[in-house]
Amino acid sequence: MNISVLGTGSVGQALATKLVSLGHKVFMGTRNIENSLNKTEPDGWGNPAVGGWIKNNPEVQLCTYKEAVQKGNDLVVFAMNGNAAFDCLNAVGEDLLNGKTMIDISNPLDFSKGFPPSLTICNTDSLSEKIQTKYPKLKVVKSLNTMSNPVMVNPSLVSGDHSVFVSGNDETAKSQVVSLLNSFGWKNENIIELGDITTARGTEMMLPVWVRLFGKLQTPLFNFNVNIAK
Amino acid sequence: MNISVLGTGSVGQALATKLVSLGHKVFMGTRNIENSLNKTEPDGWGNPAVGGWIKNNPEVQLCTYKEAVQKGNDLVVFAMNGNAAFDCLNAVGEDLLNGKTMIDISNPLDFSKGFPPSLTICNTDSLSEKIQTKYPKLKVVKSLNTMSNPVMVNPSLVSGDHSVFVSGNDETAKSQVVSLLNSFGWKNENIIELGDITTARGTEMMLPVWVRLFGKLQTPLFNFNVNIAK
Repeated sequence: MNISVLGTGSVGQALATKLVSLGHKVFMGTRNIENSLNKTEPDGWGNPAVGGWIKNNPEVQLCTYKEAVQKGNDLVVFAMNGNAAFDCLNAVGEDLLNGKTMIDISNPLDFSKGFPPSLTICNTDSLSEKIQTKYPKLKVVKSLNTMSNPVMVNPSLVSGDHSVFVSGNDETAKSQVVSLLNSFGWKNENIIELGDITTARGTEMMLPVWVRLFGKLQTPLFNFNVNIAK
Repeated sequence: MNISVLGTGSVGQALATKLVSLGHKVFMGTRNIENSLNKTEPDGWGNPAVGGWIKNNPEVQLCTYKEAVQKGNDLVVFAMNGNAAFDCLNAVGEDLLNGKTMIDISNPLDFSKGFPPSLTICNTDSLSEKIQTKYPKLKVVKSLNTMSNPVMVNPSLVSGDHSVFVSGNDETAKSQVVSLLNSFGWKNENIIELGDITTARGTEMMLPVWVRLFGKLQTPLFNFNVNIAK
């Protein structure tokens, strides 16, 4: 497939690398190509800057947001901080988004008051719902937002069975995302389809406990499993 | 121990039954004893009303909130809807609460707009923090609020390992709660001490996904497990 990955941070990089390894053509979208190429210092978390990363990953084509979706038009992966969603999607434009499937990996985390972050949207709404409402013909599927990016693309990093959630209004788009998850190594029995896009409230609201678990466990290599009665 | 259980609903009943079976003396607190004794119809979820239940559980002494804490003064179990917390705790009174350990099992769920419920407090605050702030000398420990009541008191109902979270400011009070969890069948390796009482935000915010999982799985007999890297 031709896949656009919106976002150049560690989540975008992890997804792009995995997608290339699976034989897909990947178009990575950024607000400003030149600025991204000039970024060569790792961020505060030690993640490689996209400028250096893209040189080591020449199969990935760095594009503007709009160009990325034009070229990677079989599937859109939204892999930015959730609060940047509308700047990015407005730059792509509604015409181009209409009819596309977009897997939304993001969370509306607010780090402006330090650690722990809060959410800018929650409880009676969610970022995914806001995107779905603004772009009613875009097929938004929330998934993978409840774990760190190494686990997203390599579930075998975490021991035993563990869960990935899927929320969305369009059954075909959800099937497409489930197939993608399967190709990443997620077994069907660990993929939990929660329901329509309003169920994204629940998974976005798992971030506050995720963040505290990260602090407690001192590793991002963990995930939630839903265990059921014998 | 002499233990007070505040709340006469299904959570209070499950906890009281378990505590009696472990040899504790249980004092169940209600707003109005006579009204409780007159309740004999099961609620909308099919849970037995406290009036009938108490007849079948004569070891449990039904008291006012205040009397319950006076008599069950080794440990307080708060097992009501979170939104009723201040009516109840105000009736007990600060003098009696000071110095006590209170395990807070509740969640601030708002069903007033139907299903799914939202939370009346979340994100930058939590019910447990509000209680701790109002009663600074009460030792509030949040725990067991991320699962259904049968699982709380019988973790072996759910297969494999699964997690219970503990949040609180007082280390001695948390140890007391961990011992209680052990006596319910929770293994130490499945008890996750998240940190101070602000970490209760994270566990209260797991309720929205819990509610959707309950809808999806059609059973309350499930729980989250935190799986870690191999």
